[in-house]
Amino acid sequence: MDTAIRRGDFADHQSLVDTLLNEVFTEATARAAILAPGYAELWRQLRANTDGGKRFRPRLVMAVYDAFGGTDWHGVAHVAASIELLHTALIVHDDVIDRDFVRRGIPNVSGVYRDIAQTAGLSIPTAEHRGMGVGVIAGDLALATAFRLMRRASSEPAVCEQLLELLDRAVFDSAAGELIDVDFTVRAGVASVDEIVHMERLKTAVYSFEIPLVAGALLARADGTQAEVLGQIGTEIGIAYQVVDDLLGVFGDERLTGKTTLGDLREGKQTALIAVAAETDAWDELQPYVGNPQLTHDDLVRARELFERSGAKARAEALAAEHIARAEALIDSSTLPLALQLELRGLAQRAVERSR
Amino acid sequence: MDTAIRRGDFADHQSLVDTLLNEVFTEATARAAILAPGYAELWRQLRANTDGGKRFRPRLVMAVYDAFGGTDWHGVAHVAASIELLHTALIVHDDVIDRDFVRRGIPNVSGVYRDIAQTAGLSIPTAEHRGMGVGVIAGDLALATAFRLMRRASSEPAVCEQLLELLDRAVFDSAAGELIDVDFTVRAGVASVDEIVHMERLKTAVYSFEIPLVAGALLARADGTQAEVLGQIGTEIGIAYQVVDDLLGVFGDERLTGKTTLGDLREGKQTALIAVAAETDAWDELQPYVGNPQLTHDDLVRARELFERSGAKARAEALAAEHIARAEALIDSSTLPLALQLELRGLAQRAVERSR
Repeated sequence: MDTAIRRGDFADHQSLVDTLLNEVFTEATARAAILAPGYAELWRQLRANTDGGKRFRPRLVMAVYDAFGGTDWHGVAHVAASIELLHTALIVHDDVIDRDFVRRGIPNVSGVYRDIAQTAGLSIPTAEHRGMGVGVIAGDLALATAFRLMRRASSEPAVCEQLLELLDRAVFDSAAGELIDVDFTVRAGVASVDEIVHMERLKTAVYSFEIPLVAGALLARADGTQAEVLGQIGTEIGIAYQVVDDLLGVFGDERLTGKTTLGDLREGKQTALIAVAAETDAWDELQPYVGNPQLTHDDLVRARELFERSGAKARAEALAAEHIARAEALIDSSTLPLALQLELRGLAQRAVERSR
Repeated sequence: MDTAIRRGDFADHQSLVDTLLNEVFTEATARAAILAPGYAELWRQLRANTDGGKRFRPRLVMAVYDAFGGTDWHGVAHVAASIELLHTALIVHDDVIDRDFVRRGIPNVSGVYRDIAQTAGLSIPTAEHRGMGVGVIAGDLALATAFRLMRRASSEPAVCEQLLELLDRAVFDSAAGELIDVDFTVRAGVASVDEIVHMERLKTAVYSFEIPLVAGALLARADGTQAEVLGQIGTEIGIAYQVVDDLLGVFGDERLTGKTTLGDLREGKQTALIAVAAETDAWDELQPYVGNPQLTHDDLVRARELFERSGAKARAEALAAEHIARAEALIDSSTLPLALQLELRGLAQRAVERSR
């Protein structure tokens, strides 16, 4: 599997991850079919939810691994696929927690099973609950499979243990972020900018940026200092990425993001944009738009104006830029391989300049 | 930790598991406190949910390990604690899936967080959903911790891998059982006895009986044939245990089971008792009691009479006895250590004679 791969040949590296995930799902689906036909179908749904990903985290793992001269493509594919499955587990469970049945315009696991239950004649609340129940099961399977892949990433027990520790921390931190996010919905008032940044770091930046970069370095046996600085760079880029996500949630182009720009405001989601807006004079005027489930497109246009006029939009953009600047300073003062520095600067730029 | 332990001294063995779980939760709670006070509280709730257990599965692991002459009590405590945490993960998520907020008369994780949200002024559906969301997070943490403990059970990579494979299968099979159970609620009609037994084997017998027995044998380096027969014995006892559970769900003494005998019938739970009843002439008369959320204590008395008169109760008891007989035949024809044979016969008897 790994012999034909040349260094720097990312298309081939990526296809290794897809091939591995394909093998994992094919094998699990076949084993599931022996237990129950419906169980095989659940694995197919889980695969569909994983195939939809942009393979963004695997790319990070592989870029770092390649830059440090790693050559065990079989091993790195396992690390990358493990993190991708962790991502699947977390979004499937996040959607259960948020009662979301659609992701990027397509029914997610919960949505598919809700629809089946409704077609079978169940009431909407019962069908929704059934969909969420299957979502809980599916996320557990993805999580267990992530651990399974990670422990097969290296024949060196010490390296495996380091990688598994990383995966443990990814689960630990993202659970903290998820809990803090859930807590925001119970508390009165708006969270502060610092609280939002803390939550977004834990919920997304750690497992999506920090852990993939560090894991690639560890597997390539880069020294501990390099891994540490990569982790810090990942955190900064990850926070910026998430703040931009919050901006796109209101100002994005729906055709590009695949996400309605009414969603965040309607559900009153606590985001960096909302937190900075709450510190401006326009907040009294803005507040009625936040958490209004009947928000119309005209309301959205008006809310956007208020976010812009009050300077909240510019402040959120500045917040993202500040974290990108920190990432760039860390890159500049690092002794990371030059090709990797270039790669990371590109990643930082794309995180803030993206439109989806 | 392991030096002072004598063979056969089960009180000491058990306390090792409690000590280890105590260490794990103390460390996680301290790390969680750094991220958010509420996160430390979640770990305390998870610990409370784990402490409530009867340590039934750890006992099985340790009895087998001891019978095969194992002496690494540090290692076996890790296997036992891992399986106990898997149990916590599965019941916490099972309660989310079943929308249960109480277990054994005490609010579970979802129940505690639902109550907090309600006290904070949220509507009941929103508070319930919030409670379930925290339940999803808590179960994920317990599951990840189960994997963490299992991989530390042995310094031999090959033994660890076998144990982790077992844990993988426990997750895989119990997810199948859970899904089949969820499917029953969507389908019209009553599941057959075979379907119920298949579901109960996957959902409970595998992780509660088969895996603990096999894991204890593997860690003690018993030969593969012994481990295999232990797995088969575990499956049979586990099925019997679950069929008895179904009987206790309607005929049990609430003061002993800690579970209302109205619950199973009110929610229309598909159990072995219901499946055998559906094959009797009394079914037309019984059916209105099953899935009636307004079922009263008088209705219950009448339903119990019907279960008895139709022979359904006796048939369910015979079904449990049949699986116990199979377990006993397997024990008799085995070459397992005599002390372990005695232990397993006792386990089989207690599974059917228990009143809670």
